[in-house]
Amino acid sequence: MTIAARWLLPDGIEEILPPQAARIEALRRALLDEYQVWGFDLLQPPTAEYLESLLTGVGHDLDLLTFKITDQLNGRMMGVSADRTQQVARMDAHSIPKEGVARYCYCSQVLHTKATHLLSSRNPLQIGAELYGTSGNQSDLEIISLMLRSLEIAGLKDVTVDLGHVGIYQALIAEMSLTADQQAELYTLLRHRALPELAQWLSSSELTDKQQRILAKLPEMAGSVTSISDWKAALAGAPDEVFNALANLQAIAEATIQRFPNVNVHLDLAELRDYNYHTGMVFSAFVPGFGQPVARGGRYDHTGEVFGRSRPATGFSSDLKVLTCLTSLDWSASSGILAPDSDSVALQQKIQQLRSQGERVIQLFTGQTHIEELGCDRMLVMEDDQWQIQPLVNNGRN
Amino acid sequence: MTIAARWLLPDGIEEILPPQAARIEALRRALLDEYQVWGFDLLQPPTAEYLESLLTGVGHDLDLLTFKITDQLNGRMMGVSADRTQQVARMDAHSIPKEGVARYCYCSQVLHTKATHLLSSRNPLQIGAELYGTSGNQSDLEIISLMLRSLEIAGLKDVTVDLGHVGIYQALIAEMSLTADQQAELYTLLRHRALPELAQWLSSSELTDKQQRILAKLPEMAGSVTSISDWKAALAGAPDEVFNALANLQAIAEATIQRFPNVNVHLDLAELRDYNYHTGMVFSAFVPGFGQPVARGGRYDHTGEVFGRSRPATGFSSDLKVLTCLTSLDWSASSGILAPDSDSVALQQKIQQLRSQGERVIQLFTGQTHIEELGCDRMLVMEDDQWQIQPLVNNGRN
Repeated sequence: MTIAARWLLPDGIEEILPPQAARIEALRRALLDEYQVWGFDLLQPPTAEYLESLLTGVGHDLDLLTFKITDQLNGRMMGVSADRTQQVARMDAHSIPKEGVARYCYCSQVLHTKATHLLSSRNPLQIGAELYGTSGNQSDLEIISLMLRSLEIAGLKDVTVDLGHVGIYQALIAEMSLTADQQAELYTLLRHRALPELAQWLSSSELTDKQQRILAKLPEMAGSVTSISDWKAALAGAPDEVFNALANLQAIAEATIQRFPNVNVHLDLAELRDYNYHTGMVFSAFVPGFGQPVARGGRYDHTGEVFGRSRPATGFSSDLKVLTCLTSLDWSASSGILAPDSDSVALQQKIQQLRSQGERVIQLFTGQTHIEELGCDRMLVMEDDQWQIQPLVNNGRN
Repeated sequence: MTIAARWLLPDGIEEILPPQAARIEALRRALLDEYQVWGFDLLQPPTAEYLESLLTGVGHDLDLLTFKITDQLNGRMMGVSADRTQQVARMDAHSIPKEGVARYCYCSQVLHTKATHLLSSRNPLQIGAELYGTSGNQSDLEIISLMLRSLEIAGLKDVTVDLGHVGIYQALIAEMSLTADQQAELYTLLRHRALPELAQWLSSSELTDKQQRILAKLPEMAGSVTSISDWKAALAGAPDEVFNALANLQAIAEATIQRFPNVNVHLDLAELRDYNYHTGMVFSAFVPGFGQPVARGGRYDHTGEVFGRSRPATGFSSDLKVLTCLTSLDWSASSGILAPDSDSVALQQKIQQLRSQGERVIQLFTGQTHIEELGCDRMLVMEDDQWQIQPLVNNGRN
């Protein structure tokens, strides 16, 4: 075993070192503080649960992302949490005795078997918020607002939010007699926007001309809120649910534009999701220079049903490590006071007093070297029978 | 699959619900703030690493505690982190370019295959601090002081700290010609204080009478610092290292008593550790009514050697969930302001302004019920053409 083989981290799994860890801590606190003043209660799902709890109805993608482990107490399979949404659904359904609207937030590491996108972490520090017990546009708008407010706090500029509605696709295929295999093929083609393959698939299908025309155009239905009237015309003849979903999308888009005039609001009717547990509005936020969403979310009604309580729900999440890339917040101290290596009671009291005032005080050990690494700019010196603070000359090198 | 089977959590794995999660968050911030003013830099080790990084030289116990998973990118075995100490050793040795004394702290969940003690969590929220690059008593004293300060901040009373020194046992057996199997047997007997079995084992061994006498007495060498002179007499003829270790133990015990007059300082020469990576001072803190240590630590020099840099090190850690049991700190808001379900721009601005002042403001949805669950005591009302705060009558039930 070479030394390099010992310290090498797995691809996509990162350690967070001191200067970055302090920035993440600063943003973590700022975001959780904000979620609290919006009424979102902090909770902490476990690192691992039984697979029956983690993977209910969430689709194949999350299953593949989840590391499986065996509970040695009883041989049952557990999964290491790859996403908090299912866990929060279980907690809302079973653990929390609220009958009305409930708001939750969380922030901790999850683990993925593989990167969900090129360069994305397999060990995201997932932060998010979930809103349970109401299905109206107001709740989606609140979650989108909190997501965009999070990006503001993180200092992200030139944000674009993509709004979609999986109800449009679901209503369209509900009236088509497609087998499960055909539905899966169509879903994959649309999700990857494979236009030539989609055209070929449609022409060899038994769908009506009108249905083919609508599905072929769906990937092109992306743009600003002003395009909605054109899309309505192109969707003529589609089921009523499609137009209800469009109306919701329009109302939420217009409210978002009004609340966040600096955010670029973009609509996309063919936006489908990896985890396929979504049931209504879906949204993703982007910033220039980062090819993947910096935050994303959507509606996922009735996920809690398998846990004994079916409730409407909407939420968003993000990787705090990604959000911190551009933040200017910091929690680490930029200075400090050196104390000499004396165990005098008066010195100990002085150190304690300074620390209680928020000063960073580092006491030297006998013979300590490399003092310039400690990041101190002042020192404690005994003068006039008192411990006094003086500037540290030459950053401790003398 | 019954519904109960879906929501049941594995034994020893807990979720943390809102009121407790907020108390944990409060204590987490208070402790990390304290570690920062002592000069300990926050870092975040990954949730999983290759086994070669996680399990180097740490003994059988930590291996058994670690869930093994396969990296699907290359088939190598990884472990889900069960303890942060090895990870910090790797980071100090390889990732952080400090030549002198370095201080680190961390706080996040780890996962255990089995409970380390009856009733202990398999998913502790491990918080801890590590001090690298110096081997003197001053550094052990600093770590013990920070551990006891952490318990003070958590509000724990009647704390007892047990101090031991594994160097005493190591020096004693170094001069005995024991096979590896015999050493393991002796270690297990001492660690579990199996006195009758120990006596039998010793009498059937080939150790000298003096060696047998000292080993038989070792488990009885526990008490206050005033007993040290008796122990010295009983250890007469033991190697010099034993007396050096005793002198260190005495100096650290006396300094701890001086710094923490309210803490009960107890010495124990037969205190051996589960993970057996310790090399010097070891310490555990106890409070009445909790049968296991609430915090523990010790010296573990040269753990980083396999990562390419051998440095002295000492540290402690604790389960934040345990520390929070008795804390009176809280981070959750105890009140809040209800806002009506209007999207008036003036109302949105008022809500934003109140939240930026730290007020918890929850906007109602159309037709929302169970408002008493929201924990609000005031409401926003339009009066004299302005949004004004008024007391909420009857907790929102009307």
